[in-house]
Parts: sequence; structure tokens; C-alpha cells
Amino acid sequence: MTSTPTISFELNRADLRARRNAKWSQYGPDVLPAFVADMDFSVAAPIQTAIERIVRDRDYGYPMREGNKAELIVAKSFARRMKALYDWDLSPDLVLPVADLVQGTYAPILAFSDPGDSIILQVPSYPPFRDAINGTERRLLPLPMRDDGTRYAFDMSELETLVEEGTRIFVLCNPQNPTGRVFRRDELLSLAQFAIAHDLIVISDEIHSDLVYPGQQHVPFASLGSEIASRTITLNSATKSFNIPGLRCALIAFGSEDLRERFEKRIPLRLAGQGNIIGVDATVAAWNECQPWLDAVMDHLLKARNRIKAVLKAEVPEIHLHAPEATYLAWLDCSKLKLSTSAFQFFLDKARIGFSPGESFDPNCASFVRFNFATSTPILDEILDRIIIAARQSDS
Amino acid sequence: MTSTPTISFELNRADLRARRNAKWSQYGPDVLPAFVADMDFSVAAPIQTAIERIVRDRDYGYPMREGNKAELIVAKSFARRMKALYDWDLSPDLVLPVADLVQGTYAPILAFSDPGDSIILQVPSYPPFRDAINGTERRLLPLPMRDDGTRYAFDMSELETLVEEGTRIFVLCNPQNPTGRVFRRDELLSLAQFAIAHDLIVISDEIHSDLVYPGQQHVPFASLGSEIASRTITLNSATKSFNIPGLRCALIAFGSEDLRERFEKRIPLRLAGQGNIIGVDATVAAWNECQPWLDAVMDHLLKARNRIKAVLKAEVPEIHLHAPEATYLAWLDCSKLKLSTSAFQFFLDKARIGFSPGESFDPNCASFVRFNFATSTPILDEILDRIIIAARQSDS
Repeated sequence: MTSTPTISFELNRADLRARRNAKWSQYGPDVLPAFVADMDFSVAAPIQTAIERIVRDRDYGYPMREGNKAELIVAKSFARRMKALYDWDLSPDLVLPVADLVQGTYAPILAFSDPGDSIILQVPSYPPFRDAINGTERRLLPLPMRDDGTRYAFDMSELETLVEEGTRIFVLCNPQNPTGRVFRRDELLSLAQFAIAHDLIVISDEIHSDLVYPGQQHVPFASLGSEIASRTITLNSATKSFNIPGLRCALIAFGSEDLRERFEKRIPLRLAGQGNIIGVDATVAAWNECQPWLDAVMDHLLKARNRIKAVLKAEVPEIHLHAPEATYLAWLDCSKLKLSTSAFQFFLDKARIGFSPGESFDPNCASFVRFNFATSTPILDEILDRIIIAARQSDS
Repeated sequence: MTSTPTISFELNRADLRARRNAKWSQYGPDVLPAFVADMDFSVAAPIQTAIERIVRDRDYGYPMREGNKAELIVAKSFARRMKALYDWDLSPDLVLPVADLVQGTYAPILAFSDPGDSIILQVPSYPPFRDAINGTERRLLPLPMRDDGTRYAFDMSELETLVEEGTRIFVLCNPQNPTGRVFRRDELLSLAQFAIAHDLIVISDEIHSDLVYPGQQHVPFASLGSEIASRTITLNSATKSFNIPGLRCALIAFGSEDLRERFEKRIPLRLAGQGNIIGVDATVAAWNECQPWLDAVMDHLLKARNRIKAVLKAEVPEIHLHAPEATYLAWLDCSKLKLSTSAFQFFLDKARIGFSPGESFDPNCASFVRFNFATSTPILDEILDRIIIAARQSDS
């Protein structure tokens, strides 16, 4: 690990387009992609070193690490990291490695609710959460993230009116995707009291927790206290913040032994599948050795975020955003552009930008797009230029 | 792909012990491991090339292949291979990639039976199958593989007495682990009639189907006909035959659309997790490009198998085996050695060989060991020498 890590930006668009990832393959060469949560940065050196060691040795057998099944080092590394970053005491025994976050969403929904039960989900939301609820014959109770003028927030009194007899689960996404909110401790404490009062399980997706900007502090929901922990399933992964989603390694952390046992009665742990060794070693390298790389990435992303905010405010004030408190995702409200199509379609057609469609996060949000700004400054500037030109044309 | 592939044997024991796999890490340096189903051969060149390309490009984003989600190429490649090898028409749409075979066992057990139902399993069996049945509150009905003097076989009349009202599933392992049997078409047809007559789902683990020796022919159970296919879940993977278990990529193939839909009602497909790109590309390289490597491996394994049979017959006739018809696993019946401990413990203590304990495949089989002979000739010879010396001491 170097003491002064640098991020390697992929500046050459031919190289980016030669990649076989969704981000740079989905569209033709005239479209700049800004959708799926991939960053246009090369992985940190310690991750690459860990992978290259396995590949050099062709060491693809049933893996062991530290005298045990390899996946256990993911659990240990995560628990150590949670203690160091948040003073959260989590036993590695309560951590189940899985392939991806979506799997980690379906599993507790199936374990802790039945068909016909209802599940509260903050909307707009990561689309697979909706699929996981609707696709398993549960009923979705949407809790809107409303723009209060300074930020997106949910309303506790609205939440109280939403909950009903058969409500079993609250799905929390913190930091919230796509709004970029980092919930304050007092907001989380209110949610915790609510969950306890209504005997709810909380599925807390914290996959963006490494990507918090200065001025905010991530609080793991299960770290609020043992009573709330005992009803909280935390989902996390290094894949988002360290840019290794194709390697597949995520985890489910149970807030208590009892919770894990209740889960396992419905969903045997081995139904989850076992971790692949490349994902396991990459994840552990990320958490144990790559904080300096992440810090450098966050410096870059902070500048990008601020630039987007400043440029749009100056040039296209009709496009509204609250600077995200976390994530490299900006949630652009384009309703004042008064477009005749969805905002996604407008920018794809008129600006040749591939954003994520707002309506994929909430059917009511077709006038929004989610803007993945984890790219190099030249590409970011070109995207901003294209936004400005297209938006001005929309006025005329 | 070279036209004359050679297998790269790992002859240097220091190199083998430097590997971080279970096989060479579990025991100290004086023990020769012959247990977990890893081969001491380097992977085929096209697999290594496919992996190295991803690693060279640091191409770890959300992967696409051929314009779709990457996992789909696993389904396509498998379906093509089944058609080419067995004239089995399987739609790629009916193939669900998963992480490992164990996951593929739990999922259909949960989908097609309920607690209290019974499941027939051939014994001795791969240990996780027993765990999957017993650990999900199903009842295990063991169907013994009996030594009929020429081979291990199950008895259809015994099977008829076993089945009962609440029997829902037959778990077939073909080729059978650990006995190495490749079931003949007539045996499989009898099983198929039985499954239809008793309205059973068949889970057919065919992970060893690439490792069949001359004189035998693998028949995919679902290829017997559409009626039996419509109740068959086939499990397969390239990990065993191409020696990449740590990369995790397996599949569940449904024999009909209706079967997949019934499955999905109980087990949403995304609960399975998504394939990692290294495992996906390695698997497709294996199936599409590595048959010459596999042929070379099978030549080597055939010689090893025959050598074990000949040497034991000549030197230690008290150890009985039927030469396996498939797999690199020999099922050694040591009951005539009249050991005071399990055969596993005897060979570990007296010969410093780490076999798989027979009792892990069947509690009644403590006088058996499973011998993984996928190693180089010098190591194989040393294992045979150690067996002979220890067995002779047991007589005195």
C-alpha cells in the first residue's frame, strides 16, 4: 500500500468502451453513460495485487484462509471495520457472506414475512427492492422521500399513518439511493422506536456507507442499541465503494443470534451459496488496505458533486438537485423543464447521455434522472455541457 | 487452444503446499492429502487466458457478454454442450446459474417439498445432500448402493418398499459420488418410471458427468424424455471436471417451463445471487474450448485408476474396490482389514494419508475411505506405498 495513492482514471474512451461492462457496452459510441453504479476508475492496487496472486498461482481450488473456509475472512474483516469506523460491536459469527445485495434483500423478506404481509419501503428506491416485495406476493407500502426545501426526508407522521396490522418489515436504505441522503442519528432513532413499537424487522441496506461526504456521518442502524439490533438485518458490500461489482461478494449481518436462528429456520444458510475466492480476497483487501484509495476517490467525487451543483445552478436552474450527502449519484429533478417525454428519454435523445430513468426508482418520478458522476473530469464536463445545451433547447 | 494439450502437473510439493486451498492446507507437511475433490493439475490454458484478460483489463464492473447479463452465456454454453454431447435439447431459458451445487440442492428441496415430507437419497452420498434433507426438517429415506460383486448398484424392489405417502423427491447422483457408478440407461429408465408412478421430483446431480471412463456413457436424466424431464432438476457445473471450484459457478436446469415456474413461486430466482464474472468466463471457456485438456486429464486418470486397482489387488487384496466407472474418486472398502478405528483414522495415523472418511458419506461406512487420485504419478505411487505398508502392519 502506498502512502499517497492516486486514482487511475480511465481517460481514454476507446479503453472504456473496450471494457465488457454494462456501463460502456449498453449504448453506442455517441452516448455518454451515466447510469449503472460503476465508477470509471481502476481498482485500488491492493485489490489488484490480491487478485493477481490467485491468478498467478492458478489457485482456484476449494479455498482456505487463516485455517478456515475462505468466506469467514469476509465476516471477520467486516466486523473489524465496523468496530473501527463506528464502534459497532458485531460478531463475525453473525455475518453471512452472499453473492450480492439483491440476494440479501430477498432472503430476509422471505424469512421474516409471508405472502399478503406488507413491507414499508422508502421511495424512490433501488428497483430490485420493489421487485423483491412485489414479486414475492408481499404488499409494498411506499414511504416517500419528500423534498423539504433543503434535503430529501421522510415524515414520521406519514410513516405512522402507513403502518398497518400486517406490516412486518421496514426496508431502510442509508445512505439513500437515489436521493443521496445520509440519515441523522435522530432520524434513525425515531425509526428505531417506530420499528420496536410496531414489532418490525428492519432490513438496512448500507452499501453506500463508505461514500459519505464531509459534514455527514454514517450511523449503522444496528449500532443504535441492542434492542434495535435484535430486529435488524444489515446489508453491505465492498463492491460499490471499491468498484468491484462483477466479482460478487456481499454480506448479511444479523443483529443477534436469535435473529440469525429465526432466519435460518426459513432460509438455510447454505441456500445462499458460497463466496468465490476472487470476490472474497478482493473484498478483504478493500476493507483492510484500501482506505487511502477510497479517500482519494472521495476527494475527487466531492469536487465532481460540487461542480455539478454549481454548474447546474448557474446554467440550468430549472434542473434542481440537493447535493447528495453520500454516493456518486445525483438525483436530478427536471420537472421545471416541462418535458413532453421522460427526462431519461429527453437526455438520451437530445443530449446522448444515458442516465438512469427516474421512473425505474419510482413510477411517479419520470421527470427525474439519476446521474452517476463517478467519472473523470473531462467526461463529467462533457456531460454537463450536453445537459446545458439540451436543456436550453427544451426552453425554446 | 493447442491441438496437443498437455496437463501441467504440480510435481513440486512445496508449490502444492504453498497453495491456499483446503486440500494442501488442512494437514501438516507429513500428510499426503487425498480428500476434497480438487485435482493437482493446473487449469486448462483457455481458462487461464479468459481469467487473465479480465484481470489485465481490471474489468470488474457489472458485466455484460454478448449484449446481455453475463450469466446468460453460462446457460447458452451449457445448453449447446448438452446438445452436442448427448443430443439433449435444453433451452437456455430453463438454466439458472447459481454459485455452487450445494445451493442447487437446497433450493429445489425447499421448492418441491415441505417439512415432514420424505426424500429418497442414494447412500453413501455427498455429505451436503444429507445435511440439506435433515437440516430442512425433511425425512431422509436412504437407498443403499449395494456391492453386487461386480459393481455398486441400487435395487428397484428395495426402492419400491422405501417410498411412502409423503415422499416428494428422489435425489439422484449420476455418476454417483463416492461409488463412481455411471448408471445405465435401463437403470435410469426404471428410475424414471418409478418417479412418474409416484409423482416424484428428481434432483439429478450430474456434476461428475464429464469424468466418465471408456466403456461407459453418461445419460442426462432429463434427456430420457419430456415426461421425466418435466419433473427433473439437473445440477451441473464445470468446477469439478475443470478444477475451478474456488471460482464458484454452477447451474440448475429445469426440465420444463412449468417446473421452473413452480420453483420460482417458492424460491425467487434472484434469491440465488448472480454469477461472478471470473467464474462465468472460466466456465464458458471450459465448456467451449477445453475438451482436449479434459481428454488428456481423463487419459491420465484412467491410468491412475487402473494402477490403483492393480496394485491393491496384488499387494493388499484385503482392501476391496470396484474400479470407478467415472470420477477420480475410489471408494475403498477396508472392512477386511478389521481395523479397531475408522479406516480414515487408521490411514491418517499409520500412513499419514488424508482420505475422506467413509462415515461422512454414510454413518455405516466407517470402514471405507474415499480416495481422490487426481494427482501426479509420483504422489500417487507414494500414497499406494503408504497404504501397502500400513495395511500390512495392521495384519501383524
